[in-house]
Amino acid sequence: MPDFTRKTSHTPADRMRDINPFRVMTVLERAKALEGQGRSIVHLEVGEPDFVTAQPILEAGRDALARGCTAYTPAAGLLSLREAISGHYLRQYGLRISPERIFVTPGASGALSLLAQMLLNPGDGVLMTDPGYPCNRNYVRLAGAQAQLVPVTAIENFQLNASLLSQHATSSTRSVWLASPANPTGTVLSLQQLRALHDWCVENDCHLLVDEIYHGLDYTEGLPTALQISDDVFVVNSFSKYFGMTGWRLGWFVVPDSLVAVSNILAQNLFIAASTVAQHAALRAFDTDTREILEARRLDFAARRIFLTKVLRELGFSVPVETQGAFYIYAGIEAFSTDSEHFCKVLLEDFGVAVTPGTDFGEFESSRHVRFAFTTSMRQLEVAAERLRAAVLSGALSS
Amino acid sequence: MPDFTRKTSHTPADRMRDINPFRVMTVLERAKALEGQGRSIVHLEVGEPDFVTAQPILEAGRDALARGCTAYTPAAGLLSLREAISGHYLRQYGLRISPERIFVTPGASGALSLLAQMLLNPGDGVLMTDPGYPCNRNYVRLAGAQAQLVPVTAIENFQLNASLLSQHATSSTRSVWLASPANPTGTVLSLQQLRALHDWCVENDCHLLVDEIYHGLDYTEGLPTALQISDDVFVVNSFSKYFGMTGWRLGWFVVPDSLVAVSNILAQNLFIAASTVAQHAALRAFDTDTREILEARRLDFAARRIFLTKVLRELGFSVPVETQGAFYIYAGIEAFSTDSEHFCKVLLEDFGVAVTPGTDFGEFESSRHVRFAFTTSMRQLEVAAERLRAAVLSGALSS
Repeated sequence: MPDFTRKTSHTPADRMRDINPFRVMTVLERAKALEGQGRSIVHLEVGEPDFVTAQPILEAGRDALARGCTAYTPAAGLLSLREAISGHYLRQYGLRISPERIFVTPGASGALSLLAQMLLNPGDGVLMTDPGYPCNRNYVRLAGAQAQLVPVTAIENFQLNASLLSQHATSSTRSVWLASPANPTGTVLSLQQLRALHDWCVENDCHLLVDEIYHGLDYTEGLPTALQISDDVFVVNSFSKYFGMTGWRLGWFVVPDSLVAVSNILAQNLFIAASTVAQHAALRAFDTDTREILEARRLDFAARRIFLTKVLRELGFSVPVETQGAFYIYAGIEAFSTDSEHFCKVLLEDFGVAVTPGTDFGEFESSRHVRFAFTTSMRQLEVAAERLRAAVLSGALSS
Repeated sequence: MPDFTRKTSHTPADRMRDINPFRVMTVLERAKALEGQGRSIVHLEVGEPDFVTAQPILEAGRDALARGCTAYTPAAGLLSLREAISGHYLRQYGLRISPERIFVTPGASGALSLLAQMLLNPGDGVLMTDPGYPCNRNYVRLAGAQAQLVPVTAIENFQLNASLLSQHATSSTRSVWLASPANPTGTVLSLQQLRALHDWCVENDCHLLVDEIYHGLDYTEGLPTALQISDDVFVVNSFSKYFGMTGWRLGWFVVPDSLVAVSNILAQNLFIAASTVAQHAALRAFDTDTREILEARRLDFAARRIFLTKVLRELGFSVPVETQGAFYIYAGIEAFSTDSEHFCKVLLEDFGVAVTPGTDFGEFESSRHVRFAFTTSMRQLEVAAERLRAAVLSGALSS
């Protein structure tokens, strides 16, 4: 870890004190080291689908390279891709979103980073859930603003609501960041809930930003996008998860008309543009043959979800809310331990199962939770189930 | 342009007032619109090599996709690529740079953005040249710090020196950002100059960051890297320019040992990782067959440079310093005009030659300069020469 005590020209900026490494990366590195020693590890820590990108998308990428598509695209992305995303909103949600309002970015990371810089002044407060995706706090911090973490439980489906917002808002609150489906809890927001949250934001003069990067990977009917509520919301999405394009680094965001010009300026400055080959590849992401592959994969995730939820509940983990989207189960370990980091360490070192401690996602009851990612095959999940059973029976998980 | 007067939830953050669009993008858009109307335009505005990525790199990208390399890499990049970059420093400069200190990023943009956030506190001052690459001011601004622009002229080769630093430093100065070769002036720093600048930084407890993204595209012998001076400098480089991989979005930076851990944390948070296919493709960038292609291209740029410099001087442009690196000529237009934006507009609209006004690069004498990018073929440069001659003879460029 960097040394903040000695003030020299190489002391990192103060904000770096608040930016934490992902514990999941430490778990992953240790898991790989154990595998290097010949150990068998089941990976339930990684937030990345275990499928290679679908063949039609891969082929489109290869074709683009064969055609020599290696120059910069416009900062906002290829117009054809922005039109394809617009078409996706029409087909999927019956919404007309002008391609002008859609910006293609280097991953959702690029989108969140840009929106934080575009929307937040130093000192602004941003309400978000605890637990939640850890990077969001950091994007906010990098803009000089402050995450205002709202503890959420199974009672409110691990999501914010107007009452919680009113309770936790301060005079500095300027923004509300939601995620549906959410990481690590896998819960979603209904149209009615989104509307109530949006109403609160309008009344309180706050931006509403909704992270929809797990859209498509949901196990409910008719998951709504926040764009159905209003044109004045900020929506972030990604080709990484449902579309299975993690390593290509491609996402998008949608802004209100009034912020198109300023978004363009910031995109030019921050990125120049997103990857050209990734953009050409993504043009095939919405085609029927690709969608059939993605839908089959979604059903695979759905089956894994049912299997793993059942296993965990039988073993004594608490899973108060079934996963509604994404590929995570946020399980309570109170039957075994009050120290999720120690729990994860023992599970990895002694039983060969890698999972992420709740402490990656916030502070609220995070030492009593772990996140299981069902991003591995059913066969591997069965191995994990056996090992988890052995671990529970051994008593070694207790702290 | 965004409306900053009406304070609502959609008013952009205050910092956006200071972030300007690239005028070159406006020129490019207008040039394309004119082409859409059937006009012939010679593009001397674009800071992007006109070559498609070299075949061995392209093929490596296609192979990586065929092998299904579509997952995230580690945040710092593929170890094999970091080792290849380390090998490049050894072969090219006789330097041993540990791969640990090398971070692969989404373009040099990602590197500069990360380093600004990692090194600069709000209020910190960063000395840099005027004229200079406009994004650097903006990365600094996004970190809440302030660019301290130092006017430079042909007398000091458009570069900083210790005397200028001492003149312009204030109590808030914490950092010096250099570029060699520099955009838009095409000038470089010698080992001796770099050493003097580094000495000043050590004495004044400032970081020294050197943008070396045009390294390789130089027309001098033995261009030094700042890493030859010391291990405590911050160096940014890119696969975009010399390696011809603009649209792939791949760069790197090198940090001192003490900042490896914190760089890793910030890379995880800001990017997750750089493009996987781009990283696999770049593994071929340092191979002999690729380098032969790149060297041939460099010689092509060198020939264009000589041709265009001669043409401009004959026509009455001032080119007090010959381009030593990159693919730009920063030419004085004082014989014709004191309004570079108007000059560029007339040249584009009436004579079909697109160039960038000096005002993209700073304030100092920027209305008396324009930037010519020789990123088009010799044949096109000959057409440009004829059109420039006609423009000068017409008297229409005067303001």
